Amino acid sequence: MSNFYYQDGTLMVEGLSARDVAQAHGTPAYVYSAQALREGLGTIQKAFAAIDPLVCFSVKSCPNLSVLKLLVDHGAGLDVVSGGELRRALQAGAPPEKIVFAGVGKSREELTLAIQQGVLMFNVESTAELERINEISGGLGRKVQLALRVNPDVADETTHAKTSTGGRETKFGIPLHHAEKIIADGGFEHVDICGLHVHLGSPLSEASPYLLAIEALEQMEQRLAAAGREIRYINVGGGYPVSYASPGQSFRPVLEIGQAIAERLQGFRARGKKFVVEPGRSVVANAGLLLCQVEYMKQGWDHKIAIVNAGMNTLIRPTLYGAFHLMWPAQHDGFTGDWEAVARLPAQGLEKVDVVGPICETGDYLALGRSLPAMKSGDLLAVFSCGAYGMSMASNYNSHGRPAEVLVDGSEMRLIRRREVYEDLVAFEVDLLK
Amino acid sequence: MSNFYYQDGTLMVEGLSARDVAQAHGTPAYVYSAQALREGLGTIQKAFAAIDPLVCFSVKSCPNLSVLKLLVDHGAGLDVVSGGELRRALQAGAPPEKIVFAGVGKSREELTLAIQQGVLMFNVESTAELERINEISGGLGRKVQLALRVNPDVADETTHAKTSTGGRETKFGIPLHHAEKIIADGGFEHVDICGLHVHLGSPLSEASPYLLAIEALEQMEQRLAAAGREIRYINVGGGYPVSYASPGQSFRPVLEIGQAIAERLQGFRARGKKFVVEPGRSVVANAGLLLCQVEYMKQGWDHKIAIVNAGMNTLIRPTLYGAFHLMWPAQHDGFTGDWEAVARLPAQGLEKVDVVGPICETGDYLALGRSLPAMKSGDLLAVFSCGAYGMSMASNYNSHGRPAEVLVDGSEMRLIRRREVYEDLVAFEVDLLK
Repeated sequence: MSNFYYQDGTLMVEGLSARDVAQAHGTPAYVYSAQALREGLGTIQKAFAAIDPLVCFSVKSCPNLSVLKLLVDHGAGLDVVSGGELRRALQAGAPPEKIVFAGVGKSREELTLAIQQGVLMFNVESTAELERINEISGGLGRKVQLALRVNPDVADETTHAKTSTGGRETKFGIPLHHAEKIIADGGFEHVDICGLHVHLGSPLSEASPYLLAIEALEQMEQRLAAAGREIRYINVGGGYPVSYASPGQSFRPVLEIGQAIAERLQGFRARGKKFVVEPGRSVVANAGLLLCQVEYMKQGWDHKIAIVNAGMNTLIRPTLYGAFHLMWPAQHDGFTGDWEAVARLPAQGLEKVDVVGPICETGDYLALGRSLPAMKSGDLLAVFSCGAYGMSMASNYNSHGRPAEVLVDGSEMRLIRRREVYEDLVAFEVDLLK
Repeated sequence: MSNFYYQDGTLMVEGLSARDVAQAHGTPAYVYSAQALREGLGTIQKAFAAIDPLVCFSVKSCPNLSVLKLLVDHGAGLDVVSGGELRRALQAGAPPEKIVFAGVGKSREELTLAIQQGVLMFNVESTAELERINEISGGLGRKVQLALRVNPDVADETTHAKTSTGGRETKFGIPLHHAEKIIADGGFEHVDICGLHVHLGSPLSEASPYLLAIEALEQMEQRLAAAGREIRYINVGGGYPVSYASPGQSFRPVLEIGQAIAERLQGFRARGKKFVVEPGRSVVANAGLLLCQVEYMKQGWDHKIAIVNAGMNTLIRPTLYGAFHLMWPAQHDGFTGDWEAVARLPAQGLEKVDVVGPICETGDYLALGRSLPAMKSGDLLAVFSCGAYGMSMASNYNSHGRPAEVLVDGSEMRLIRRREVYEDLVAFEVDLLK
């Protein structure tokens, strides 16, 4: 049984009804299942078990402190991409030696903080950054570990252009030949270039881009080894997929892709290398849903419109990436079973509807032309698979407060981020208003 | 002379250098020119002078309290689309009778607050909303004024699909024939349907969609008048354009379009109607710039990359809409003159560069393949025409704090929103972390 299911017509999140969560904390709200988070992390750990990697959860996908703490408590390290994420990681209790710091734009302040805190390593994105880290590290009397993020020119065409990061045209990584030359030449005395890193985008729906990239890394590593330059860490990044159309089926592709990658890395393993993986979406996407409420049903010229109280300010993925999210009313009388099953019932009685938010922009929608049961004002609507890149990308556009975040664990629920109110929106302006 | 110009090689904002602003308040920062704000508002007032409308500035484009206060002090009313915007408007000192409340998803709480505060009128987007307003108004013993937002099925093909709002396929407005029937039928005793409203999208680059929509409104209004139903207000919305490619040339199209609309409305004027216009972008877009700093210059496989400390978290327009913003280094040795002139100098010595932010996403860019002078780490870069839909759409994605906002007036500068720091990002989580 999934952690999200209908029982006598009522959508449940573990042992609580979505309705009870909404009554306690209002809508819109991001609601996470603790059990689903544990299962998401466990699936990654199982997929890569053959290489026993450090699993660094990608904080950017869901940075809530309580979510991070739960994952850290279950063995996760963390992958951070800013000083803010680093401080979140530390505050959530992650040991510095299980934190990797990635991202193309690390500032001096961010690098200094991370070196002082003793993170495991940096994923370095450019020569200029390498020089800066070498300088700061030297100034602090350290010798920090780092991996070069290699751009292998492996483009994955199954993901969105905005989130495919392995191609030569992107801003990411150091061109492979150039990275190899940097390591071969040496000369940065305050750093220990001990790792190679690739990250190809997210989500990737098959293993082949990873295998191509690993092939390139392995050839490079062997040439470097022959030249006396030893690499100790291989970091294959993240991007492991979830199925937004069939969320309950997501574990299998993650397992298959992870196992294929782990198998391909056995040569590295035989030569004593250590491994890092950086999953985000695959751990949290299906562990969270966005609970919102229908404000109005409306008839357009030619189509029905459901206006809900969550929009592009709450969840920007539909308009930014054309992302698809399953959604269904939180009440479906007479149904008991997995929530995905209800969405697959015969289309009898459904109506096509645009599900839109309160923002004054045509791009403000959660779904267009979706077949859904008839809804009315006040109905709760659950938007599934919103645990990743949901709250983390939310804004205050149109001066709406950002939603509450709630963590359900069994029959307990806990508010893990309170809803923003008006005073929060203007707090950094009011003292300055003359 | 523009309010943004180079003097002896240094970019100035009115009487202060961009460098001084950055030194005082850091980067990234949104920097507004008070004089440009006044001129932006003045241009709209001038464009529509022939019909003497209530000019309601669209708060969503730039909701900072100090910006609102400046515009209100110079005669603007305000167009709000949420309870948060309404409270901003009131806190900025706008008289309620100069506030119009629009938006498809007004909640009971928002409507109640607005009625209690006595806003001028609502722009009503659906029958369901009309029924709700009638009910709340009656419960409060009021009779509130409202305009029906008419969807005239006028699509403008010159703006982005995500921001064109006048077509039949959007979520906006009530289909024209339906709106007419509502007014003709009467029957909502606690409201006074005194206005007709259209808003076609933003930005619209020519007057013709407005003229088409006004034609439709006029025919409708005359049929209603013949049936004894009098309309007193005509609200033609906003969407007046700016030129992002030639910002200094923006006033002319606004004047031309505004004057064409005002001319077309003379028939209404002759019959004693009052008018509302709702400009946002045309007032503020060119009154603000985003000041950021180059972190790293980087060589990709085939192209140069400038990594700056502002990204899609700071300014989402480039990746969300494919929006074009002129940008130029804040120092251009030896040049004195309007900032647009420097960007039009011969291409000699320029290099093509992707200007990207620190966010871990390929879609995180401010410009791709832009011809710019050679830059180096630490250089200040000004991204122009960022006064509208810049800060208002910013997020904390990747756990970066949102930027400071600074208002320059002559040789004075004033911090009007302070930069967010780490503690702000987690303030609504920390007490709840167990």
